[in-house]
This record gives sequence, C-alpha cells and structure tokens, in this order.
Amino acid sequence: MLGSTHGTLTTDSRRTRAIACGERSGPAVHGRPARTGDLDVSGRPLHADVPDLDRFFRPQSVAVIGASDAEGRPNTGITRQLADWAERVGARLYPVHPSRPAVFGMPCCPSVAGLPEQVDLAVVLVGDPLPVVEELAEAKARFAVVFASGFAETGPEGEAAQRRLTAAVGRSGMRLLGPNTNLNAFERFRADLQGPAIALITQSGHQGRPVFALQELGIRLSHWAPTGNEADLESADFLSYFAEQPEVGAIACYLEGLKDGRSFLLAADRAARRGVPVVAVKVGRTETGARTAASHTGKLTGADAVVDAALRQYGVIRVDGLDELQDTATLLARARPPRADGVVVYSISGGTGAHVADLATEAGLRLPVLSEAKQAELHQWIPEYLSVANPVDNGGHPVGDQRGRKIIDAILDDPEVGVLVCPISGPFPPLSDRLVRDLVEAAEQTDKLVCVVWGSPVGTEPAYREVLLGSSRVATFRTVGNCLTAVRAYLGHHRFTTGYRSPFDEAPRTPSPPTARPRR
Amino acid sequence: MLGSTHGTLTTDSRRTRAIACGERSGPAVHGRPARTGDLDVSGRPLHADVPDLDRFFRPQSVAVIGASDAEGRPNTGITRQLADWAERVGARLYPVHPSRPAVFGMPCCPSVAGLPEQVDLAVVLVGDPLPVVEELAEAKARFAVVFASGFAETGPEGEAAQRRLTAAVGRSGMRLLGPNTNLNAFERFRADLQGPAIALITQSGHQGRPVFALQELGIRLSHWAPTGNEADLESADFLSYFAEQPEVGAIACYLEGLKDGRSFLLAADRAARRGVPVVAVKVGRTETGARTAASHTGKLTGADAVVDAALRQYGVIRVDGLDELQDTATLLARARPPRADGVVVYSISGGTGAHVADLATEAGLRLPVLSEAKQAELHQWIPEYLSVANPVDNGGHPVGDQRGRKIIDAILDDPEVGVLVCPISGPFPPLSDRLVRDLVEAAEQTDKLVCVVWGSPVGTEPAYREVLLGSSRVATFRTVGNCLTAVRAYLGHHRFTTGYRSPFDEAPRTPSPPTARPRR
Repeated sequence: MLGSTHGTLTTDSRRTRAIACGERSGPAVHGRPARTGDLDVSGRPLHADVPDLDRFFRPQSVAVIGASDAEGRPNTGITRQLADWAERVGARLYPVHPSRPAVFGMPCCPSVAGLPEQVDLAVVLVGDPLPVVEELAEAKARFAVVFASGFAETGPEGEAAQRRLTAAVGRSGMRLLGPNTNLNAFERFRADLQGPAIALITQSGHQGRPVFALQELGIRLSHWAPTGNEADLESADFLSYFAEQPEVGAIACYLEGLKDGRSFLLAADRAARRGVPVVAVKVGRTETGARTAASHTGKLTGADAVVDAALRQYGVIRVDGLDELQDTATLLARARPPRADGVVVYSISGGTGAHVADLATEAGLRLPVLSEAKQAELHQWIPEYLSVANPVDNGGHPVGDQRGRKIIDAILDDPEVGVLVCPISGPFPPLSDRLVRDLVEAAEQTDKLVCVVWGSPVGTEPAYREVLLGSSRVATFRTVGNCLTAVRAYLGHHRFTTGYRSPFDEAPRTPSPPTARPRR
Repeated sequence: MLGSTHGTLTTDSRRTRAIACGERSGPAVHGRPARTGDLDVSGRPLHADVPDLDRFFRPQSVAVIGASDAEGRPNTGITRQLADWAERVGARLYPVHPSRPAVFGMPCCPSVAGLPEQVDLAVVLVGDPLPVVEELAEAKARFAVVFASGFAETGPEGEAAQRRLTAAVGRSGMRLLGPNTNLNAFERFRADLQGPAIALITQSGHQGRPVFALQELGIRLSHWAPTGNEADLESADFLSYFAEQPEVGAIACYLEGLKDGRSFLLAADRAARRGVPVVAVKVGRTETGARTAASHTGKLTGADAVVDAALRQYGVIRVDGLDELQDTATLLARARPPRADGVVVYSISGGTGAHVADLATEAGLRLPVLSEAKQAELHQWIPEYLSVANPVDNGGHPVGDQRGRKIIDAILDDPEVGVLVCPISGPFPPLSDRLVRDLVEAAEQTDKLVCVVWGSPVGTEPAYREVLLGSSRVATFRTVGNCLTAVRAYLGHHRFTTGYRSPFDEAPRTPSPPTARPRR
C-alpha cells in the first residue's frame, strides 16, 4: 500500500534529517525515549526526533548580516522590521556591516567574528550568503535565516550552491532556514487572542498571508515557518515541532514539494498520534503546477497520486484553495471533539434547508432524521406544516422571539446531533440579528459544534463582523461549500485519530529467517 | 441522447404552457412568427411563445387583497412595502378588505368586484386564495401573486387545491405567480447602476437574497421572479421573457424542480439561441435534497443525471453554491465576448503563480506558454531570474512603479491571451494598491477579461471595497476556486453559443414513410 512503511514516498535514500539541535534534548518521541537508531528492515528510519526550535521562534539575541538604513534599499525595510520586532519582544539586536559604524542608531559590528556573543539567530541579507553561513556555523550561531534567492530554483548551478550551503551547516550544530525566505516567522502575532491557535508552514510567504490575516478576524496564530528552499530545516521539522506545542490547535501548510518523503511521513505520524490536525494545500496536481513550483522554490512536487495517498494515510487533510485552508484549519483548531457525527441543517427557509441538506449529503455527511419525539418537541415552537425532520425549517418567525433559542437548544440537546449548521442566505436584521445572537449564546453553553454560513456577499453587516466574528465558539463561514468541507474534515479527523495505529510501530525491524527447505 | 427532441425530460404529457397573455402579442420567436401549433412527430411542442410579463414587472395599478395596517400582522408589513413601492414607481394602489374603510390612509374596496378599474396586478394575501382568484380571473386582472402556502408542498390534499387554482386561472387570460411566494419582484432595484444586468429566478425567496444583495457591491439586477409553487407561471416563462430583455446580461436561477421539462428546454433553447447565459443551482443531487425540496415548494426534483445532462445540452451552467451562482452570473453578465481562450496567471509571487496555474490547469483552462518574444518584452521590466512563461511572476517590485502597468498591457496585448487572472493572496498596500489601480485602468482600455482574486479574508481593505468593487470592468472574486469556475463557464458559454444548433429546428415533424417491402 502506498505510503506504508514499505512505501515509495522516500525521495532520498539518506537518513531522515533528524538532528536535535541546541542544548536541550528533544522531548521523548511517542512517549518513549528517543531512538534515533531505530530502522526498519530496509534501513529506513522509524523515528525522527523533534528539533528544538524554541530559540528560533523566540531568539534572545539576533544578528543582522547586511543591515542597512540607507533610504530605498530593500535591506533597510527588513532591518527596520527586525529592530521593531526586537524592541517589542525585548531581544538584543546586532547589526553587522563591514563599513558602517551604526544602523538606525545601533552600533554595527564589522563582521560575524566581531559579535559580542553567540547569537540565537542570524538573519543573513547579503547576496552571497555562503561565506557568511560558514563563518556563522563556526561561531556557533544557533540558527540562521538566509534571504538570498538564486539557488535550487534556478537550475543545476543553483542546486550545487544550495548543496554547499547544506554542507556548511551540516558540519556544525547550526540550523538554517532558507535560502529564498523571509521574516514571516517574526511578524506581529496578536497576544490578545485566546484559545487554540493555528501554526502555519509555507513554502511561499505570499501564500501564507491570508491565513496569517485571520488574526484580523479574531483567530489566533501562534507560529509561521516560511521554509523557502529548505536547504536545511524543512516543513517536516516544523510539523513535528508544532505538533508538540500545547497552544497549537491545528497546523496549516502551503506546500509545493516535500524535501524528503520519509521525514514528512514521520512528522505527520507524530501529529496523527498526538491528534493534532494538519491541513495542507499541496501544489502539483498538474504538470503546469509541478513546473512552476520547481522554478519557485526548486521543489519536486512528486507524483501527485502518491503524495495524495500518503497524505491521506497519515490523516493530513488536503484542500485546494487557500480559502479552504483558512476555514478548515480554523475549525479544526478551535472545535472541541465531536459528541456525535450527526449533522442537522437548521434554517429560516425551507429552500435553504433543502439546498444545504442536498449538498451536505452529497459531501458525505450524515443527516439523521430526527426522532418523532424530537420533532414533536420542535413543533411546540415551529408550525406543524413545516418540516423539522432535518433539515429543520422554522419558517422565519420563531427566531424573532424566545422560541428561537429554545429550538437551537433542543436540536443541540439531541444525542444523535454533533453538529448544527445554520446557513443564513440573506440577512434580514429583524430576524437574523436575533438568530445570530441566539446561536452565539447557545454555542457558549455546549460542547457541540455550531456552524453559521453568512451568505451575504456584502460582509460588512454588524451581525457578521461583530457578533459572529466576535465569537470563538461559533464557526463562521462565508460559503456553504467551505463549511461542508471543514465539517467533513473535522468529523473525519476525529474518526481517523481515534482509530489511528501508526504503521511505524509494527514495521519489521529484522529480516524474516530464510524459509526452511521443505523436507521430502 | 438525453434531452434531445426525442429525450425524456418531459415530465407531463400536456402541451407546454405557452399562453400569450395581455394585449401585446409576444415577440417573434427565433426570428420567425409565432408557431404555436408546431409539433414534433410525437406531438410535443417545438416552440413556446414568450409570455408578455411587462405589466407584471411594471404594473400601473395594483390591488392588495387582505391589506392591513393593524400592528403586528404579517400582512401589514407587506401592505406597507407595496405602498412604498407604489409611491416610488408611481403605480395606483387599491387596498381590498371586507370591513376596513381605509388602510394606511388609503380608502379600501370591500371586494374585488368593487375595484374601480381592471388592475394589472392583484396581490393576494388571504389564507384561502381560491375564491379570490376565481373572482379576479373573472374581473380580468392581468396578473395575480398568491402568498398563501399549504398547497402542493403539503401532500395530496394540497396538490388538489393547487390544481383548482391552476384551473381557475386557466379558464381566463389571467396569469398567476405562486402560491407560496412573496414580493421579491417588487424589491428596490437600484436605478443608478449601469451595464448589463442579472435577472434572477428563484423557487425560494431567501435563496435569492445573496444574488440580489450583489447590488450592494455595484452589480446591476434588473428582475427577480420568485416562482414559488408554480401553479401557473413557471421558471421557464421567466427564462424566456428574460432572454428577450435587452438589459439582461445573464439569468441566475435557484431551482428545486422543473415543472415541465419540455417548457424548460424550449426556454433554455431560446436563451442559447440569443446567447444569453443561464447559470443555475439545481437542488436534487441526493435523495435528501429531493425529499426536502418536495416539502418546500412541492417540486419533483427529477432524476438528477437526466436533469444534469439536459441542462448541459442547452448550455445551462450548473453550479452548486449560491456563491458560485453570484460570481459566475456576474462575470457572464458583464464580460465582453472572449478574444482568445488563453488564460495568463499574473502575480507578485511565484508561489501564488504556481498554485493558481496548477488549479487553473486542473480546471481545464488553457495556459499557453508565452512566446519567446513576449517573454523578452516582459523581461524588460521583470528580472531575468523570474519565470514569465505563464504564470508570469513579477517578483513584486515592478508593480510599485511605472513598470507595473506596462507589464499588464503587454500581457493583454498578446493575441493568444483572452483572460488575465491576477490573484492577490495578501494585500501589501505599497505594492497591491498600485497593482489594483493599474489593473482597473488597464481593464478600462481593453475588451479582454481581467480577473482579480482578492484573497484576504478581511475584505474591508479600500483597494478591494473601493477600487476593485468600484470597477465594472474588472471581475473581482474572493476565492481562486470561484474565479476559475466562472472563467471556465465564461469561455465555455461563448464556445457553446458560437457553435449552437437548436435540436428543435431539425426535429422530425412527420412520421417517416413506412419502409417499402424489399422487392424479391
């Protein structure tokens, strides 16, 4: 079977990259002490340590190689951004420049060798980073981020240069992010947002922007790893690390290629064991995508059917659009485990109910017919001529008074029901404002999932902007399609992790004894 | 073949409903005089007249049967809405009530018989509409709208009542909308919006709301027909009528069931001949959808595969979500015919380009590799190391100055290119504000299609709200998925109508002569 421990998704025969770095040894993997020598019968690793990236994401000292404050130079903007960031988080910043005495009023070191201390992080902005990286590796900087492009994404020469970069860090304990990356890891993460967060891994900064912008809608982001060309640190390293962070509720990925299939599967296996959902856009469905990804970050996208099957085997939820990535990751990060897999569609219009029930069933969700008793209960508040079997059509008026909340509570109280989906095709404030308030209040008092689809294309209505987006308990969507995709992923994820058994646990470690010659 | 003139999509053996009403005879159909007696060899109509619905949509005199101004009664809100509307459009309004002397200060007629003139439209708000409809039919009101529910959607008894309603209007020249409908046709249509409009047909008022709300984003709506149970006037009637209106650029439909397959196909054929795109959500992909649609407006959704194939044969574009309905109908209403079918993806990030090119190719769009000469031209402004073959990656910086507009113009100037898709994953105002302005200005000066995907989930940015939505020439989307769906529909529609030959033109009208016995 594809992606099994005997599978094909190892694009490189070398050992999985699993160098623990920093002084702290990685946490025990899978509840057992680290077993870096654990190999399967073919010599492939059955285990990967989690790299310690704490100091990468929260460095206390940072050197900027190629710092500038000259008007109009790109490095100036980056230096300013880092200076602001350092001030905000209280890190020590050391500009490095061979000739300038100071940058933005901070005294410059002329070279890496002149740095007053071993730094947690070196940000390398120079055009030819190799000599600097070699120097840094020697000086034992813990981490380096390399901005320069012109490596594997440009062809054979660039690939060779990238291999030299890899070799330079490989000889030291330093870990490197990039080349062809940026400062996304040091953006402004809102500290005022509570609850489980999304951690983000992207092989393109611009493609991570919409997920990062979710903060403006009140959704917490904890980390962003823009992995660029992955000469050293790769997506799998961040995947493992994020899966171990208590604040991470879900990991969202934009991937062009997997540097090493085995590493990625071991990291996905870790997330699956820990029940941390991973949602990924993976480019490479077509030859066009594969070609352009290669010229962007030098990735080989891989045979799409193989990648797809492997992702599925380890429970990675693959989506196509960044909007689906946002909506699915948000839901999975924040929703509590389902109490049942039944979905009820509840609306103020029979048409909306019919349409959404049709699409939900088509999407593979289970819409149980509510019991006679439950229907009778609902008909206390909903006229008899309306159907409340599921979808539940309230006809509109009941949501305008105290019946509205009672209906919602009665639906959520049904043991068959794990998810309530309420599509509001068009806002009609006299009804929908109260409906939305009731849904938000009901969601506060239940463990069950309450989803609202705000169907108006306008999106500036207070019921949406303030009430729905102000709630961390209601999952709000703008399209029925994205809601159903996310709900299916949510139910599927919990079904998957509940029954998950890692194929790595039972992988054969020793060859079978040779078959005895049958006696005559 | 399904849906051919010998096909199966006639759910009713009676003649297609095609009664011309009003004094004006319908426009010539298919450029020929009306041929209501034109039948195929099996006796099925090959032609349907266009009902004259001018006076329905712009009535000069309206009676409201069951008018009320009593606080808290639903009819009061409806009466007020009609009074406001009548004042706005300058129509004469006659409240009808057996006992009240006046409603909202307007003198009441005690009965239909007491109306001072034959009215264009009677709005029937009473619970048992049959006697009123019979009276109206006799009094020769041109049109009636019946609000009451409790008909075919409730089961056999309701069906029988609905048949009585149908029979009552069938005996007269009056046409009836409903029952189980509302006042959506008389909403506030913005008169300040220019250009081709969307006409809307819905079998549920709530489900039409998001399309109608497009007006708030600057998109023109011309008509809304909420057809309800379709005891008389049906979706096909409005489809034919809208296809003949010069201001209609596209027809958007939310359908639960087709009352008469043959009528619908004749109407779709008319739209296809006239090149008017029809975009439809059609409920009934699953048994759940079929069951709930039946309980909503009493429709039989039909065998989905048959409906699907028939829609396709007549070029009706089927979509699943109301968001797709909005985006696809808007694009088809407003975009000029394509000059070429090549699509270029243009972005400020190689990652975005790779991702969108991958999805576009997967969606079946053709992304031609730009010629060497064009690539050389683009490299005047875009660094050599970036790929401009298609997708075109500008790396960001060129959009910040005068190079940005030159790049856009050069792409649009390529004869292979019919569509430029520019996904902006994350706004970065120093670049994206100018990019958006350049795209809007370039779109004003070309016949080619310029699409922008505004990927930020926030949606309150001025570049989106003011600049993009302020342009009727740029097609703006919020998701790549919807953009690609709409572009595919746009190119497909024009390909389809260019090559369209109506199967009704060549349908056999007389039986073949009996085969001669072969001579021995």
